[in-house]
Amino acid sequence: MIAVDANGADAGPEAVAEGARRSGERVLLFGPADRLGPSEGNVEVVDAPERIGGDEEPVRAVRGRPEASIVQAAAAVADGRADALVSAGATGPTLAAATLAVKRIKGVHRPAIAALLPLPAGRVLLLDAGANVEVRPEHLVQFAYMGVAFMEHVEGVDRPRVGLLSVGAEAGKGTPDIRAAHERLAAGELAFAGNVEGFDLPSAAVDVVVTDGFTGNVALKTMEATSKVTREAIRGAIRSSAVATVGGLLIRGAVDGLRARLDPEAVGGAILLGLRRPVVIGHGSFGPVGLASAIGLARRAVDERMVERTAAALAAGGALRSAAAGSVSRE
Amino acid sequence: MIAVDANGADAGPEAVAEGARRSGERVLLFGPADRLGPSEGNVEVVDAPERIGGDEEPVRAVRGRPEASIVQAAAAVADGRADALVSAGATGPTLAAATLAVKRIKGVHRPAIAALLPLPAGRVLLLDAGANVEVRPEHLVQFAYMGVAFMEHVEGVDRPRVGLLSVGAEAGKGTPDIRAAHERLAAGELAFAGNVEGFDLPSAAVDVVVTDGFTGNVALKTMEATSKVTREAIRGAIRSSAVATVGGLLIRGAVDGLRARLDPEAVGGAILLGLRRPVVIGHGSFGPVGLASAIGLARRAVDERMVERTAAALAAGGALRSAAAGSVSRE
Repeated sequence: MIAVDANGADAGPEAVAEGARRSGERVLLFGPADRLGPSEGNVEVVDAPERIGGDEEPVRAVRGRPEASIVQAAAAVADGRADALVSAGATGPTLAAATLAVKRIKGVHRPAIAALLPLPAGRVLLLDAGANVEVRPEHLVQFAYMGVAFMEHVEGVDRPRVGLLSVGAEAGKGTPDIRAAHERLAAGELAFAGNVEGFDLPSAAVDVVVTDGFTGNVALKTMEATSKVTREAIRGAIRSSAVATVGGLLIRGAVDGLRARLDPEAVGGAILLGLRRPVVIGHGSFGPVGLASAIGLARRAVDERMVERTAAALAAGGALRSAAAGSVSRE
Repeated sequence: MIAVDANGADAGPEAVAEGARRSGERVLLFGPADRLGPSEGNVEVVDAPERIGGDEEPVRAVRGRPEASIVQAAAAVADGRADALVSAGATGPTLAAATLAVKRIKGVHRPAIAALLPLPAGRVLLLDAGANVEVRPEHLVQFAYMGVAFMEHVEGVDRPRVGLLSVGAEAGKGTPDIRAAHERLAAGELAFAGNVEGFDLPSAAVDVVVTDGFTGNVALKTMEATSKVTREAIRGAIRSSAVATVGGLLIRGAVDGLRARLDPEAVGGAILLGLRRPVVIGHGSFGPVGLASAIGLARRAVDERMVERTAAALAAGGALRSAAAGSVSRE
């Protein structure tokens, strides 16, 4: 069973309900019952009209509003009624509700938001994409293990390559924290490709890109917007001449095919790593297709035992908090 | 007179010499004389074959190799033989040589690398693009003043709008250092638009984007590569079908026009701000056209008295180090 918060999607709770039905998975759907349709087939509706907005202070809102849909959905996962959580868009409240109710894997410092990017050269997992604006080296090391476990077991990538995002490829480049994380990752067991630069992110030079949540958030949004601005500029240029407009019609099929291949809705959104159950956050702009993908992604993470395997990989790599306590951890 | 280091361009010193001749400006050209052609017209050649590579530790290399072309070119600016410095690509050595010889404006904490980005919606100045991987709030505030002075006086933008790069538009978003810088910029005299996100960079939502050199470097390289990957994916999709290939031929003229409008070589590269003379760093990939633009940009910065106006703006805004000493500066 997957618990889904139907509030938060730009397209409204109806679109989330539609995505839940289409997913074919068993879903416990929290939201305004009068907009979700009946409990039937694979979907069981729980009336929870109260919504926490993206503009509220997340932790305070989650603590103070137990009736809110995201809080109820997270509670369903915490008490075992559901195996995973999916929300339709508001990152802050989802992160807060999941961290408070579902809780971290024992020994994990911080959960990370991992964005799975559909790129022309393949899929890349970027983490942290915004959960932690400041991190320490041991957090970055954990992010690497968590990201690798996801790509290996949920995405089926054989021995995923990890890059540490920095300002140059050489080991000495970056901040003291980056250099410390580099040293630990280089000494570890992962397929560590060393530092990667901004150039290497869109070209999918590695499978997992590790960074702090500030840089990751900026890089992710910069990529999204640059891709959009580039496509719009080309479209604008094509429309500026009659000959090119005809050409534009002739390339439409090929470009539509490309767009479908790179569609974020097919990927399913971001996943929170480091918690005791899988948590997926769809993009606010997702329609039913994207939400069905998000639910499918959560299901796959459950079936592939992502959490257990992540915990085992962190333990085997000596990256859990207890193992690190004697060395570099400041906690 | 503009001092130009002819070493460092991917296309070789010959391309730099060609760019110097084409610029029409008076140039003192440092590099291997046997590859630069004769001293004639607007170009005076100084034989300086020794080159500092991008892989050497910059400060040590600059200090230890007084005969190197970039060191001699910076010395020419420091002793008044030239008004500005242009280098053809190696950022580290240029930054080190310029900071050591040309020196900072009195009261400036750190020079910043400012990248002038040609975007479909207009030109945006992003700083710092990599000189300082860690910064304090007072550095970010100075970057804002320095960037505004450049855009106003050299690029002719009327009252440039400044954005502070963060993970959300609200004033409270970001690290403690970002929040502190936000507070000071909001209380100041600049046209401060508040926080901007990664989305706002390629869309040119503001004229000047202020950030630390780590985030700025990652964002800049991510933008460059995303734009390239997007264009290549579209080109690849077009070539995959015969009909689309014909369409591709018909749109070629319009797309070429767009490319010319967004050509980095037309902009002239990055400029170091905060030093006592203008310093321009061309992209390593620049050919003669880009290098001529870089020299033209340096000339314009001299003619428009960029340095004097930057110093005056920093002083008027109370952003110089001495003025800040009693409040938040830790220096």
